[in-house]
Amino acid sequence: MHDISPTHPRYHSLILRDKMAKAYQEGILADTALIAHGRGEAFDYILGEKTNPPAKKAIIVAIASLLLAENPVLSVNGNTAVLAAEDIVNLAKLIPGARVEINLFYRTPQRVLKVQEVLENAGATGVLGKESDHYLPLEGLEGPRSRAHPEGVHQADVVLVPLEDGDRAEALVALGKKVITIDLNPLSRTAKKSSITIVDNLVRALPLMITEMKNLKRCSRGELEKIVNEFDNDYNLSKTLDIISQHFKRDERL
Amino acid sequence: MHDISPTHPRYHSLILRDKMAKAYQEGILADTALIAHGRGEAFDYILGEKTNPPAKKAIIVAIASLLLAENPVLSVNGNTAVLAAEDIVNLAKLIPGARVEINLFYRTPQRVLKVQEVLENAGATGVLGKESDHYLPLEGLEGPRSRAHPEGVHQADVVLVPLEDGDRAEALVALGKKVITIDLNPLSRTAKKSSITIVDNLVRALPLMITEMKNLKRCSRGELEKIVNEFDNDYNLSKTLDIISQHFKRDERL
Repeated sequence: MHDISPTHPRYHSLILRDKMAKAYQEGILADTALIAHGRGEAFDYILGEKTNPPAKKAIIVAIASLLLAENPVLSVNGNTAVLAAEDIVNLAKLIPGARVEINLFYRTPQRVLKVQEVLENAGATGVLGKESDHYLPLEGLEGPRSRAHPEGVHQADVVLVPLEDGDRAEALVALGKKVITIDLNPLSRTAKKSSITIVDNLVRALPLMITEMKNLKRCSRGELEKIVNEFDNDYNLSKTLDIISQHFKRDERL
Repeated sequence: MHDISPTHPRYHSLILRDKMAKAYQEGILADTALIAHGRGEAFDYILGEKTNPPAKKAIIVAIASLLLAENPVLSVNGNTAVLAAEDIVNLAKLIPGARVEINLFYRTPQRVLKVQEVLENAGATGVLGKESDHYLPLEGLEGPRSRAHPEGVHQADVVLVPLEDGDRAEALVALGKKVITIDLNPLSRTAKKSSITIVDNLVRALPLMITEMKNLKRCSRGELEKIVNEFDNDYNLSKTLDIISQHFKRDERL
């Protein structure tokens, strides 16, 4: 790949970019995954490449929801596995009863195997959504996106779906599930339709989720319920839009 | 590639995405080109996927500058060739004395040949920057980005560099050239450092440039000079930022 100096102002972003390109060459990702990563780069750039207060808020609510869940599931696609397999596995281990399920938009047997390998190398056990696994269709969806493991997404009450496609996020909400997404585009359908939207970069949000998990584990069920009930996702999203709007308005970089 | 219905609300964007993925598989593009395309998609999305008034303004000024140039050069990289080879060739044919030069960020002999082929299939003749061509270094740059053809970019007074990297745009300006860029990110270094920044999608801007070329060809030299001299690129860029800021502020899609 390309040599990147650690002194480059956008070093972290360039490292992730190389990671994605390498994963594509190894067959883990579809070509459109690289383009999707580029979209994420742009939105992260306009967010200032940092976790903004509304994202921090959404992270706390997301963790409270996952702790309250009866059947929490973390759904993983190719980009998520490449960018944050370890964090996903570590987060899953901290949530009582949580399962990890592979769900790929452009699903091929080869890519499912590769993603499974990435997750297992990161320490995952009992991964669902494997190529040989049984699955049930999700109402309102067609094709591979409609796949849901009977013990995973299909029966889940709370699902974390980072970098999810809009149709699938919408279908999951319509099925009555609490949908938590991590999406850098606050205007995406996924961002708008999800129950809890964390507008942040996956690689920043997941470590913060792990930290919050450790904090919130001490809370009572009632305290966690209060956190969840007081949250208004539309309002929180509008705060993110305000931040971006201000960012473009008083652009100090111009 | 993927089947895309013409009724899909983002049909045009999806068609371009497939075009890019296909070009990557054919070896015309570097992997980072797909990621760059994704960044463009995101910025186009927040621009409303349309040519905004400041972009129209910059297009007129760019055409006036190209008509006034002594040695106008259109610099083409991989993404530009894949997305808009025909438009580049048609535009070049309308500008007296204009040359087309290949300049790749991740230059390999194979990719140069492929881009040359794409341009020639679109009707280009006398393309500069070919693999066997002589070249001179550009002061302030290193490696392949520093290449400039003696009859092309090196001696140009006005250069159109769509989708250009920041270092190169900056170096060209420092060498006293009038630099016109087409860049979807109004905050990029290229956008800020160029003399005339068209914040628009290449595939929309170039056809508009061809139309404007036909209009402005009737103007006198004095009229063209007036258009160029009255233009303030920083002010025009700030108008684009206002539009984006408003777009996020009163987001009707939320």
